[in-house]
Amino acid sequence: MNRKQEILNLARRLFAEKGYNGVSMRDIAESLRISVGNVTYYFKRKEELIEAIVLDMQKEYKPRPAPQTLGELAELIVHIQELQEQLAFYFGHRTQLAQVSAKINEIQIRMLRENKILWQRTFQNLSLAGLIKKEDYPHQYDHLCKALRMVTMYWSELSKLEAESFPEKVELKECVWGMVIPLLTDEGRKLYEREIAVKA
Amino acid sequence: MNRKQEILNLARRLFAEKGYNGVSMRDIAESLRISVGNVTYYFKRKEELIEAIVLDMQKEYKPRPAPQTLGELAELIVHIQELQEQLAFYFGHRTQLAQVSAKINEIQIRMLRENKILWQRTFQNLSLAGLIKKEDYPHQYDHLCKALRMVTMYWSELSKLEAESFPEKVELKECVWGMVIPLLTDEGRKLYEREIAVKA
Repeated sequence: MNRKQEILNLARRLFAEKGYNGVSMRDIAESLRISVGNVTYYFKRKEELIEAIVLDMQKEYKPRPAPQTLGELAELIVHIQELQEQLAFYFGHRTQLAQVSAKINEIQIRMLRENKILWQRTFQNLSLAGLIKKEDYPHQYDHLCKALRMVTMYWSELSKLEAESFPEKVELKECVWGMVIPLLTDEGRKLYEREIAVKA
Repeated sequence: MNRKQEILNLARRLFAEKGYNGVSMRDIAESLRISVGNVTYYFKRKEELIEAIVLDMQKEYKPRPAPQTLGELAELIVHIQELQEQLAFYFGHRTQLAQVSAKINEIQIRMLRENKILWQRTFQNLSLAGLIKKEDYPHQYDHLCKALRMVTMYWSELSKLEAESFPEKVELKECVWGMVIPLLTDEGRKLYEREIAVKA
C-alpha cells in the first residue's frame, strides 16, 4: 500500500472515531509517525482529505433498485440506517462538508436526485402492487417523499445533537415505518404484520 | 443606539443576505465605515457575533401552546415556515453553528426538547378531540413526532442544498400536512377540507 492510500485509510478511521472536526492534520501525522509536511505533500488541507474519502465512498456506492415489496422496503430502510451509522462522520455534518468542498456539494446534489427518484418509484411500485392506498390528493406522495428524504438524510445529524440529552432512542426504521404504515391498504397491513412486524 | 448594538444589527442583516460563511469581520467593518479593530473590540471573533445574535433571537422567542384544533395546527405550521425563511441564515446551517459555539449547541438542545413536547402535546390534543385516529401501535406518534421534528428543523438546510438544482418546490406545510392527513379521522378530514384546504 502506498503512503497516499495509507494516509487516506487512517484519516477515515480517525474521522469515524473522533468526527471530522475532532481530527487535525497533526493527529494524522502523529498516528502514522511521519511529519506533517509528509501529510501535506499528498493532501494540502484537511478539506482535500475528506474530499478524497467522500469520492471513494461515492465510487463504492451502487444505486439500489426501488423496492417492489414491503420486504424489500424493510431491507432498504435497514440499509440506510446501517449506512448512516457506519458513515456517521460524513452524514453527521453533511451540511458543513458541502460548504467546505464544491465537489462534495455536487455529490450530495446528485445523491439527493437519485434518492428522490428512488422514493418516488418505491411509492409507485407499492401503489401498483396494491400495498399502499391511492393518493388522497394530488402530489401527496411527492410531499411524503420529501419528508422521507429529510428523515433519512439528517438522521445522524439529529442523533448526534440528541445523543447526550435525550434518553429515549427512536430508531430510523421506526420513524420511517411510522410514516408508511398509515398509508398501507388492508392487504398491505396484513403483509406488514405477517412479514415485517414479527421480525422487527 | 450604541456601537455594539449597531454592529450586531448590521451583522444580522449581512448574515441574512449572504449567509454566515459569506460574511467576514472585514465586511462588517467596511459596511459600518469603521476599522476591523473597532469591531473586534466588541466581538473578538465572528463566532461571538453569531452567538450574540442567536442569544437575542432566543430572548424574543416565546414558546407556543400546543394546537388544540386543526386551525391552530395550520397556524403553527405557517409560523414555523416563516421562522425558517426569516432566519434562514441560522436554520440553514444550524449544525455548523452548534459546532462553533457551545452556547448555541445548548440553545439548540433546549429548543429540541421544547419542540418535542410541543408535538407530543399536539398529537395528544388532536387525539382527544377526535380529530386524529388512535395510535395503531404503541409509540406510533412518538415516532411520527420525531419525523415531524426533523422535517421542521432541517427545512432550510435542505432547501438551500436543493435550491439550484431542483426545479419543483415543495413547501414545508405541504410536507407536514402530507404526514398528518393520513392520520385524520373522518371528522378530522371533513374539518380539514372545510377549514384548511380551501385556504391553502
